[in-house]
Amino acid sequence: MFKEKLSEIIERTDGALAAVIMGTDGIEVEKVLRPEGRELNLDVAAATFTSLVRSAQVIGREINLGQERELLVAFDHVTICARLLSRDYFVMLAVAPDGNLGRGRFELRKAELELAHEFAL
Amino acid sequence: MFKEKLSEIIERTDGALAAVIMGTDGIEVEKVLRPEGRELNLDVAAATFTSLVRSAQVIGREINLGQERELLVAFDHVTICARLLSRDYFVMLAVAPDGNLGRGRFELRKAELELAHEFAL
Repeated sequence: MFKEKLSEIIERTDGALAAVIMGTDGIEVEKVLRPEGRELNLDVAAATFTSLVRSAQVIGREINLGQERELLVAFDHVTICARLLSRDYFVMLAVAPDGNLGRGRFELRKAELELAHEFAL
Repeated sequence: MFKEKLSEIIERTDGALAAVIMGTDGIEVEKVLRPEGRELNLDVAAATFTSLVRSAQVIGREINLGQERELLVAFDHVTICARLLSRDYFVMLAVAPDGNLGRGRFELRKAELELAHEFAL
């Protein structure tokens, strides 16, 4: 079911390269990679991206900005967007620079609404 | 001139709370804070946010994703968006959750085009 959801996000988002559900402990729950995503080593990126998500959670707590909801980083070759499903899990989407980032963010938001209860452990 | 630019970004963005130009070494170049931004300790947030910007730069280099262009984190009480002016400097905008984030990103992008040459040291 998670794999179907990730494939759906990728299919609906122009320029999507990879979609991953990750634990904030750096362990992957499920992933779907397009061949271009594999070439860009986006499975490695997902693991390292986890440390960013965690650092932002700490900042939110320390300065009382509240829970982290979303983290987005745009690089020259790819934009990576993560949406928190709970404190311990997030869904991540990688989009090509000329892809439809706005649609991607919308699909992640929908995924959060649909999946959050599964990850509220 | 930097202060005028930051004030302009804040005035044009509904819900903007603070705008700061920071060095990636954590030292502030210029800032404009609305009173609500001061209450949220956004000057402290700017300093700690720098470490996130730097970590993302390292990820971009290590996995060959290219230069970091933008970093955005949405928390419950504020969304913080940073746009790199060069490898060593970035402009950051904090927007209330019900603010106009899209307009804010647009203003940061314009600021990048206008200011980048000043920070290409």
